[in-house]
Amino acid sequence: MINNNYLVIMAGGVGSRFWPMSTKEKPKQFIDITNCGRTLIQQTIDRFKGICEQKNIYIVTSKDYKKYILAQCPDVPENNILLEPCMRNTAPCIAYATYRIAEINPDANIIVSPADHLVSDKVEFQKIINTGLNFTKNNDSILTLGIKPSRPETGYGYIQTLKNPDDYEATEVKEFKEKPNLETAKQYLKEANYLWNSGIFIWSLNTIKDAIENQLPGIAKVFEAGKKVYNTNLEQDFIDENFSKCENISVDYGILEKHNNIHVIASDFGWSDLGTWGSLWENSDKDQKGNTKSSENIKLIESENCIIKLPKDKKVLIQGLEDVIIAEENGVLMICKKSEEQRIKEFQKEL
Amino acid sequence: MINNNYLVIMAGGVGSRFWPMSTKEKPKQFIDITNCGRTLIQQTIDRFKGICEQKNIYIVTSKDYKKYILAQCPDVPENNILLEPCMRNTAPCIAYATYRIAEINPDANIIVSPADHLVSDKVEFQKIINTGLNFTKNNDSILTLGIKPSRPETGYGYIQTLKNPDDYEATEVKEFKEKPNLETAKQYLKEANYLWNSGIFIWSLNTIKDAIENQLPGIAKVFEAGKKVYNTNLEQDFIDENFSKCENISVDYGILEKHNNIHVIASDFGWSDLGTWGSLWENSDKDQKGNTKSSENIKLIESENCIIKLPKDKKVLIQGLEDVIIAEENGVLMICKKSEEQRIKEFQKEL
Repeated sequence: MINNNYLVIMAGGVGSRFWPMSTKEKPKQFIDITNCGRTLIQQTIDRFKGICEQKNIYIVTSKDYKKYILAQCPDVPENNILLEPCMRNTAPCIAYATYRIAEINPDANIIVSPADHLVSDKVEFQKIINTGLNFTKNNDSILTLGIKPSRPETGYGYIQTLKNPDDYEATEVKEFKEKPNLETAKQYLKEANYLWNSGIFIWSLNTIKDAIENQLPGIAKVFEAGKKVYNTNLEQDFIDENFSKCENISVDYGILEKHNNIHVIASDFGWSDLGTWGSLWENSDKDQKGNTKSSENIKLIESENCIIKLPKDKKVLIQGLEDVIIAEENGVLMICKKSEEQRIKEFQKEL
Repeated sequence: MINNNYLVIMAGGVGSRFWPMSTKEKPKQFIDITNCGRTLIQQTIDRFKGICEQKNIYIVTSKDYKKYILAQCPDVPENNILLEPCMRNTAPCIAYATYRIAEINPDANIIVSPADHLVSDKVEFQKIINTGLNFTKNNDSILTLGIKPSRPETGYGYIQTLKNPDDYEATEVKEFKEKPNLETAKQYLKEANYLWNSGIFIWSLNTIKDAIENQLPGIAKVFEAGKKVYNTNLEQDFIDENFSKCENISVDYGILEKHNNIHVIASDFGWSDLGTWGSLWENSDKDQKGNTKSSENIKLIESENCIIKLPKDKKVLIQGLEDVIIAEENGVLMICKKSEEQRIKEFQKEL
């Protein structure tokens, strides 16, 4: 039996919000950000074990990051690392992988996942993914995973369903909602038919290929032209020459928000997009005083609710700090109040 | 004309209060602690230029530190670096230098200075030193420099004079006083005849040699036995074998406090023993918000009264900290409240 399950990992992000730990040179997906011994992309691959063969895993990333993938994901075939010559958001990224897989397996059933999210309940995650794959195998629908909200989060987009969703069932999507203000988010939380948009998608090859052709014909044209060179040694040259012609557009905006057959599964598997230091802190092991630290070489005295991410070999003594982020990577040290993390880009510019 | 002025620099301290910037491996006298481009021992030598020829400068230190002196003080003859095989406080240190100089110039007039103090007014300093040298050239008295107190400091010992001291004149000492409590220090400050004990001494060779023989005969005996080997290639072996026989005692306790002819000059040349991070902060250039930092690569936002001593090549952004010490050296980073600096030894033990 051929395994038709495919996984496309989007690993081209630059992770600027976790500066200086995450940098354009080495973004957060390639870092063991939660100190578990595995980088985020490794954790992403790990959680699909049993669902998808290694040879069916594709990673789309920037050329600069290939070295990290070779080092961290040795079981993924090198030929499955798709290299974008420039950044063009998620729609071209997904289209590239789609057209590539189309030449190998027209019956592919594809999961698309960011490389840098966190999932704490792997068993539940796999149950949801399998439910989703079964659904898209038999339905010409785009499926997205929605997360049951636990708080009035203003940092995520929301998915409104047509009717209240049942567990482990795909429900029709009514509308995608932009990141709300706090008042709106509180309202969403009260109602049962609003879910966080996780950015994890499942669809059959034909469904997504049709959608690209119909909704993003310019992008479809670019990749259609490469049919004959995919999986040959001419592919990279073709991509290098043509990828930049793609419109810079997200799959959410370019396809999902305008598609007429779109479903969601309401999920609860301990998900976080790790988009902020605060969410990293929420999702990390903490000591009794709420500190999370990257190594046993870090000693804390009279300090509370700090996030300490420092090179492992550094010996560190911290006394008397509260609610502070301390991070160092590649000779850049940043110390700031947790409450000011949204200003990290400003801080970065200071240097 | 033979220049009889000699300088003995005591450079064997371990500077534990400035951990981790200053360590037993490289204590503060060998560090550019004030970011002026010169280490403390270099500054010490600099301030005696014109008073004392380089060939008359002796540095007494631990064997481990010879490498720093060779690198930082290239004009001091290597033969003038006296190497203690073990720590025995200041009396044996001074005795060793005394007996060594005795074999070269019995008319020597000697200044003894710590290697790790700070003097901001070099012109005034030299005026005082020359006054002192003139005094000891003609008087068989021990002379110490006393600092006119500017605050009720509890971290220094005090010198009580018999009568109120006149400027640029040696005054007879009545009594040495231990570090006082705050109430006593405030009382001292009100009276005109209490001075801080700077630990800088001036005396003729004969005066100090007699004092050692009379008051510390055990130590005198050790160094008397080496007379024939000083300034030969047998000297170090002799010292290695015998130095540890010396009593572990300070020159203050062993000689000064019991001597019957002791004078002091009341001085005001911007002196600090740089004994604490607080005193370093007091004596350092600060930005408008009271921060002192070791490099232009350190940027501070919304931070006040901090002391930042980090490797020069490190890029650093600090936001939202107040009254904090941040110091890194040799892969050890310490962050603590300035008010807690007296606990630094405790912090060090944590690692």
